Amino acid sequence: MINIRTDLAVEAKEIYESENKNTKNRIPGVAVKEYTENDIKVTDVEILNEAGEKAMGKPKGTYITIDMPKFTHYDSGIMENVSRVLSKSISNITNLDESMTALVVGLGNWNITPDAVGPKVISKVMITRHLKQLVPDSIDEGVRPVCGIAPGVLGITGIETGEIIKAVADKIKPNLIICIDALASRKMERVNTTIQIGNTGISPGSGVGNKRMEISEKTLGIPVIAIGVPTVVDAATMANDTIDLVIDEMVKQSSGDSEFYNMLKKIDKEEKQRLIKEVLNPYVGGLMVTPKDIDMVIDSVSKIIATGINLALQPALELDEINQYIN
Amino acid sequence: MINIRTDLAVEAKEIYESENKNTKNRIPGVAVKEYTENDIKVTDVEILNEAGEKAMGKPKGTYITIDMPKFTHYDSGIMENVSRVLSKSISNITNLDESMTALVVGLGNWNITPDAVGPKVISKVMITRHLKQLVPDSIDEGVRPVCGIAPGVLGITGIETGEIIKAVADKIKPNLIICIDALASRKMERVNTTIQIGNTGISPGSGVGNKRMEISEKTLGIPVIAIGVPTVVDAATMANDTIDLVIDEMVKQSSGDSEFYNMLKKIDKEEKQRLIKEVLNPYVGGLMVTPKDIDMVIDSVSKIIATGINLALQPALELDEINQYIN
Amino acid sequence: MINIRTDLAVEAKEIYESENKNTKNRIPGVAVKEYTENDIKVTDVEILNEAGEKAMGKPKGTYITIDMPKFTHYDSGIMENVSRVLSKSISNITNLDESMTALVVGLGNWNITPDAVGPKVISKVMITRHLKQLVPDSIDEGVRPVCGIAPGVLGITGIETGEIIKAVADKIKPNLIICIDALASRKMERVNTTIQIGNTGISPGSGVGNKRMEISEKTLGIPVIAIGVPTVVDAATMANDTIDLVIDEMVKQSSGDSEFYNMLKKIDKEEKQRLIKEVLNPYVGGLMVTPKDIDMVIDSVSKIIATGINLALQPALELDEINQYIN
Amino acid sequence: MINIRTDLAVEAKEIYESENKNTKNRIPGVAVKEYTENDIKVTDVEILNEAGEKAMGKPKGTYITIDMPKFTHYDSGIMENVSRVLSKSISNITNLDESMTALVVGLGNWNITPDAVGPKVISKVMITRHLKQLVPDSIDEGVRPVCGIAPGVLGITGIETGEIIKAVADKIKPNLIICIDALASRKMERVNTTIQIGNTGISPGSGVGNKRMEISEKTLGIPVIAIGVPTVVDAATMANDTIDLVIDEMVKQSSGDSEFYNMLKKIDKEEKQRLIKEVLNPYVGGLMVTPKDIDMVIDSVSKIIATGINLALQPALELDEINQYIN
Repeated sequence: MINIRTDLAVEAKEIYESENKNTKNRIPGVAVKEYTENDIKVTDVEILNEAGEKAMGKPKGTYITIDMPKFTHYDSGIMENVSRVLSKSISNITNLDESMTALVVGLGNWNITPDAVGPKVISKVMITRHLKQLVPDSIDEGVRPVCGIAPGVLGITGIETGEIIKAVADKIKPNLIICIDALASRKMERVNTTIQIGNTGISPGSGVGNKRMEISEKTLGIPVIAIGVPTVVDAATMANDTIDLVIDEMVKQSSGDSEFYNMLKKIDKEEKQRLIKEVLNPYVGGLMVTPKDIDMVIDSVSKIIATGINLALQPALELDEINQYIN
Repeated sequence: MINIRTDLAVEAKEIYESENKNTKNRIPGVAVKEYTENDIKVTDVEILNEAGEKAMGKPKGTYITIDMPKFTHYDSGIMENVSRVLSKSISNITNLDESMTALVVGLGNWNITPDAVGPKVISKVMITRHLKQLVPDSIDEGVRPVCGIAPGVLGITGIETGEIIKAVADKIKPNLIICIDALASRKMERVNTTIQIGNTGISPGSGVGNKRMEISEKTLGIPVIAIGVPTVVDAATMANDTIDLVIDEMVKQSSGDSEFYNMLKKIDKEEKQRLIKEVLNPYVGGLMVTPKDIDMVIDSVSKIIATGINLALQPALELDEINQYIN
Repeated sequence: MINIRTDLAVEAKEIYESENKNTKNRIPGVAVKEYTENDIKVTDVEILNEAGEKAMGKPKGTYITIDMPKFTHYDSGIMENVSRVLSKSISNITNLDESMTALVVGLGNWNITPDAVGPKVISKVMITRHLKQLVPDSIDEGVRPVCGIAPGVLGITGIETGEIIKAVADKIKPNLIICIDALASRKMERVNTTIQIGNTGISPGSGVGNKRMEISEKTLGIPVIAIGVPTVVDAATMANDTIDLVIDEMVKQSSGDSEFYNMLKKIDKEEKQRLIKEVLNPYVGGLMVTPKDIDMVIDSVSKIIATGINLALQPALELDEINQYIN
Repeated sequence: MINIRTDLAVEAKEIYESENKNTKNRIPGVAVKEYTENDIKVTDVEILNEAGEKAMGKPKGTYITIDMPKFTHYDSGIMENVSRVLSKSISNITNLDESMTALVVGLGNWNITPDAVGPKVISKVMITRHLKQLVPDSIDEGVRPVCGIAPGVLGITGIETGEIIKAVADKIKPNLIICIDALASRKMERVNTTIQIGNTGISPGSGVGNKRMEISEKTLGIPVIAIGVPTVVDAATMANDTIDLVIDEMVKQSSGDSEFYNMLKKIDKEEKQRLIKEVLNPYVGGLMVTPKDIDMVIDSVSKIIATGINLALQPALELDEINQYIN
């Protein structure tokens, strides 16, 4: 069972494999399917049972991962393709029904650029619930009622994010909740290039901000789709992985010198933590590693996700109709 | 009774007086008190009864107006003075009790600079409720539990702002709600220079954004303090007032020429609306008049209000303790 | 000859026509051509001689006006079409030569959203001059050397914008200068919907900011293409036009009542100025009228213009190659 | 002689000392003075001769380092104190003369938050040169002519930043140039807490952005004061230092086991680079480590530096006069 947290199923899979080289990469209780759609790589990870939950450190359910092609954020054509694949993935794990109301929840802190993906998506989602209620005649039959909130993070509101969502959900009784969240990745190569869609909700302590209470069908009584995109690598994670890398390197070079091998083992968890603190002092916890053009990229990621959600929730509309509506 | 909407009691007063020149400025059912504090002009308007409500077009209650001195936004010393006067005004119309929980609500749309005052205030308010719950020992006895939300506006969420506030309030049961809202003024000279504090809540359809459901003790069952600051003049209002000004001017000049006077009357409401539409076409409704340095000024206004609220809600703390905490 | 300033040739034309109804709209010394390209309306105004200069209040030369279709800013397809029409217009009034160096100048104040179009365009233009100099082999033959600056405005730099441009131009000796500037329109309907391309440079006192020294081939010794987009209506202009509208309306209604007609005349320039001051007090000069979604629209306008410039300056490259390069 | 680049003299000093433990911390050709002013720690490093240049890897001259107290960015009182110390440091290494003109240059890229300090400072500096020229009577005798530019970075302009500065300086002939630049630190604890003032200009390749051509009295013929503040740690630097830390740790633990010691030596430069690449792939070079509240902190740092410059350049004015002027 793994002891390193990750929000991404594909990373949990990699970690498991790296720690179980002899298993020829077959993970008990987990089904993996890789395929390509509009030249975009998609990986479905299905956690089937307790064995899978134990191996992956994640609850039973479906986790779809979309890899954005290089240059996505600089080519509106590719952006649209990714949105369409996202839209299809959302539809695949939900039962969309004509009359249902969807609540889109933008998690994260709008004051911290890499954590602002959720709130930014909300401002780009096609919001219709109020029109269906206030001016039903002015809006097409086919348009579904959609509403959205950006509840903020515990540090800014003083209220559990889950409490706010539950309070609003109890009041407006949506049939589906879609949560968008910025995640932390272990690998720079995944930052702003990966989108994960899952049907198991948001597990505690994820993301750049902090969300304690689980947000899932179990806690809310409504199906919850979680869309996550890694936008940063935590600086402590990066330091930790760098240390591991150095040690691995030495182990390779030490060619079975047991005395030395044991010495390396001395660099244990506490030791590592101390070294990391030393590197990051006095900021431990508050630091993140980001690409320099983060503002631009976050805007692009938000647009891609919002468009994917709009296409999934409004199958009766064409993309240009949706975009004009958002005017 | 007046037919022109305004969010500001001092403007309602002016309008009444301009329409009732012969009353020697005494308004039935309204008590007005003007005074100075730290060189800052304060006006208390008390609406005492139905006659006052009718004359002012506002519900019974207290409306305190603070006039910021010139250059406030360019002098951190004056900013602090205004915050202290605001803090005192808030305390005067609330019963602060050691153990009470306050919910601060930042109304408005964070994507539209002049409407973002509320959300910006939230991110500068000292939020403590979660700490009192999660790590009570790490925080002083004297610190009061405070939480905050920025519920967004109907057009972005598809949910009545009042519904969201009520849902959250029902869940966390605060003893006091403080709402901050950007207002529209009729006069440029009030934009970003006036703060109104009232104990009657927010009346429908106010502000730059749109809030339909009343937010008040009546609807929420909890005392509601409303802090409003005019940040724009609606362009339609400005056009309307310009037209009136021209007509008044002509009336003056027409020296009782009745034939002409009647002709002027021809420029009636519908006519005016047509002229305004012509000026603002095709944007009617979506236009605002703002000073050019709006971004900087909105930051300053938010800081002043947040500091005022922090001082009022945390009487046990000094300003520098509060500022360091917000770190 | 007209006495009302406008930066837009199409507006100068309208003003002339409204003041010379009897001329059946033929303007001496001016040739006007209207046509459509990719469903986009384009108007070429050619000022041929002194008579035309006098009638239009603008120097001899070519002024191309592009009208963006409705919803342009919400449809990336239409955005690309507008960019391609802009690109063609730029090419039509310049002699692009393989080896030439272009200097793109983003005029305006990056701290004032509606004045920030120029600087925003610079950050989206494909900049290559340094690569041609430092790593010539890493970059295609066909790529032209392009450089750019955002010189700021007099109020922020204390230096005439023209002086800065001349200083830089004298040093790097470009063969072409393209200036992008945010303009003030007289009509809301043109705000963020019109692009003007001209070959006569920027005349003094234009725009939202203030640029005193003329920026043109005459002052710089290098051909200057000016791309202007109206992003605001000056509040004083709006008040002025509203007053005129009211007076016109009354003139219509006064049915030749000479006593009254003369009375209307009494509302002369000085009188108008006094009324406008009264409406805008104390902000005269510092106020602008903008749509509420100004931030989003300015981003879109900047992208459209930058793409048009990139396509015009890099005919050897496809749009997706350009976008990837800007990565 | 050191082989690790750093922009900060205090870091160069530390590196020298850590590599020359036996020298009892006396550095040849370098005079160090530490003192406190308004409770703020100041360190003067004087590089006196070639020996000092060799030891420090920096040109002969004076380097003043100001350490901001904890919480500076959350306490406007401390912010003012730091500004006053900065002002005094600037005055100490310049000969201010009544009639002189100062050009303030804000280096860096305004699109990358931690690199935008320079441009942000420019928009807060008291700019007067144009008024002294255009409306001399409207402005006090005692006010000095000051102008400013934000020339951008090579990647955005395609022009050497030094070329732009030289072009402008040759034209307007200032008597003093003050450059503000965001630096990269080796230690998180210095990020946004340290200000360095030097009289040797900006050396090539410094900072977050890239500036190739030296900006100094040597290249410009005018005294150049450089004000630098570290706003990020380069991610590659952090990875590198982490690796060193691990190796040092092991060396300590290996207790002179020569076989092992030699093995550690195997982790040489190339090896390190490979490891770093592996950690940062595919982003090498484009990554930075920043605190999460970077936007707010950068605003604060810019205000502190601008105020320090304003106080130094306008000794005839009080701080509140300056702030009101900037209105």
